[in-house]
Amino acid sequence: VQSSKLNAAAADKGPYQHYMLKEIFEQPGVVAETLEGRIYKGRLLEESFGYETRELLDQTRQIHIIACGTSYHAGLVARYWFEDIGIPCMVEVASEYRYRHTVVPEGTLFVTITQSGETADTLAALRGAKDKGYLGSLVVCNVPESSLVRESDVALMTRAGTEIGVASTKAFTTQLVALRLLVLAMAKRMGYTEDDLRGYIEELHSLPRQMEVVLGLNESIEQMARSFSDKEHALFLGRGPFYPIAMEGALKLKEISYIHAEAYPAGELKHGPLALVDEKMPVICALPNDPLLDKVLSNLQEVRARDGELFLFSDQEVKIELDKYQSLTLSDIHPSTAPIVYTVPLQLLAYHVALIKGTDVDQPRNLAKSVTVE
Amino acid sequence: VQSSKLNAAAADKGPYQHYMLKEIFEQPGVVAETLEGRIYKGRLLEESFGYETRELLDQTRQIHIIACGTSYHAGLVARYWFEDIGIPCMVEVASEYRYRHTVVPEGTLFVTITQSGETADTLAALRGAKDKGYLGSLVVCNVPESSLVRESDVALMTRAGTEIGVASTKAFTTQLVALRLLVLAMAKRMGYTEDDLRGYIEELHSLPRQMEVVLGLNESIEQMARSFSDKEHALFLGRGPFYPIAMEGALKLKEISYIHAEAYPAGELKHGPLALVDEKMPVICALPNDPLLDKVLSNLQEVRARDGELFLFSDQEVKIELDKYQSLTLSDIHPSTAPIVYTVPLQLLAYHVALIKGTDVDQPRNLAKSVTVE
Repeated sequence: VQSSKLNAAAADKGPYQHYMLKEIFEQPGVVAETLEGRIYKGRLLEESFGYETRELLDQTRQIHIIACGTSYHAGLVARYWFEDIGIPCMVEVASEYRYRHTVVPEGTLFVTITQSGETADTLAALRGAKDKGYLGSLVVCNVPESSLVRESDVALMTRAGTEIGVASTKAFTTQLVALRLLVLAMAKRMGYTEDDLRGYIEELHSLPRQMEVVLGLNESIEQMARSFSDKEHALFLGRGPFYPIAMEGALKLKEISYIHAEAYPAGELKHGPLALVDEKMPVICALPNDPLLDKVLSNLQEVRARDGELFLFSDQEVKIELDKYQSLTLSDIHPSTAPIVYTVPLQLLAYHVALIKGTDVDQPRNLAKSVTVE
Repeated sequence: VQSSKLNAAAADKGPYQHYMLKEIFEQPGVVAETLEGRIYKGRLLEESFGYETRELLDQTRQIHIIACGTSYHAGLVARYWFEDIGIPCMVEVASEYRYRHTVVPEGTLFVTITQSGETADTLAALRGAKDKGYLGSLVVCNVPESSLVRESDVALMTRAGTEIGVASTKAFTTQLVALRLLVLAMAKRMGYTEDDLRGYIEELHSLPRQMEVVLGLNESIEQMARSFSDKEHALFLGRGPFYPIAMEGALKLKEISYIHAEAYPAGELKHGPLALVDEKMPVICALPNDPLLDKVLSNLQEVRARDGELFLFSDQEVKIELDKYQSLTLSDIHPSTAPIVYTVPLQLLAYHVALIKGTDVDQPRNLAKSVTVE
């Protein structure tokens, strides 16, 4: 196992109280960095992926994504994106995948996602996949000299820079950006024209600016966080690609504030978790302006009927008709990149709640930055 | 929407304090009922499935399972079983599936699981699936005259009898039994011989007896439940097919005791939830004697290192080397049906904890027996 070198710039917190906050605020920059040389004037510069990767993608008909923790959530979002363009995609936790009898259909690309490139279960899954009949392996990774990069056929690097906070933030959003690029490359192979893709690429291009706008809500989110000072539980709800974003929001809160936060697909609320909801239960939900909005609002009405406390992040176009809630409005959100943008306020919420709770934000108890043992 | 008629026998609690307890204790009987006429002397009586079902299974190459709540957990267990015999299987929550762009590979059977046959999202998913290119639809259901039975191409009935407790128990285990029969029918089509299958069928045959033995632990589980009187959180851990069983155990506890119980695949513990573990966190885990045992024990050691309180249900062959724990030993467990057997102590645990907490066991707050609205 090789460790990544810290460089002086990364190890300096600058004006920020914690690495985690610094890394949250670095996101517009590192997202732009991850897009650099890969898109240009509404075009995907596929050459930048390299010959081997392009050849592998030419043959790809299905995708299996294997990852752990936060990276697993990135994979779950990408599954929606791949399926939208007609590519079947299966996503599995590495520690589960390894001991599962997986049938590998012809033309399946094995994709791993890992910040460190040293995650033990993910590395073992890659090694175990070698003789299962996959087309080849691609890793989405942040550390060029890592084991997973060395042992995968090809790599798509995130350029998040060194991440020091144990709770991953900028690694996650740059993973989503890298996966989005991969989705667009596959879309071309599924018959999408340059014209079809232009809008999506513009949306990626404007992502750093959208994230800047959200970061401007930092103080309002700090205000919102005060309502969590005496909380011990939280429910995060989402539908579609915002369900894995809810999972990521819950994981952040859990990791650094030790609040027992759990995510549910909003439609499952009535199949059990609603029993937990009373006036002591905060429910957090992203409300993008998408076709599932009415369904989510009706789920939130159920929460209100049981006196659950609502904390919402919504699109400016969304009209919220609920009797009581706290909300923050995000503007200028594009549908294809919305899951990436909505991640940022959830990171900030977790950060400020942890600060209020007085936990060790950058080094939460019991957790290590990279899980290099099984 | 048609409601199922209650019959006098079902509506009588007999010597039991609650319908839920009655229904837990009915499991050996209704499992035997569900097997009746379908297996005989080590043979699967496939004729009992009917001509149409058999013809559908002949053409099945892949399976998509759609369900909600407890039935979804049954589907997740079945996925392991189908994959073990080489059948790719995807399982999805109905409310998510409906709004997902699913690619349907050739020869895919659409399977729904529902106790009532009236679950709104599952019914809508079935209707939406009609023009997606599926081979056909099969429902695993407990109510013959229900909408899902009427609208599916074929049905495989569980014979659990009327279930009155809102928290599903006997419906779940009979769903697993029905799914196990389906797996064995598919195994024949995947080249397994009658001889290969004989052992599995014997294991199904002895399931009622195994469940009786576990029900004999009722008083010990009642003792164990006392440790939960002041608990507000719980973690359920599992690996492989025991992860969905952990999910089901957590759901039961959540539904009727309002303890915030969450399930995790044990290998993901270090990727976040370990931050929640301290001396106040009970961790519940099934320890079957399977190849993943050492991995799970090592995960449990992590829990102990953070003073988490362990509650274990283990096979008599399992040697537990941990510094402190409460455990109950299950005997006579066969690997292929172990997930079904290990469900029973988790149901009883939830029941007794709810009793101590003084909740309305059969009618937990906020929940309805069948979710017939979206």
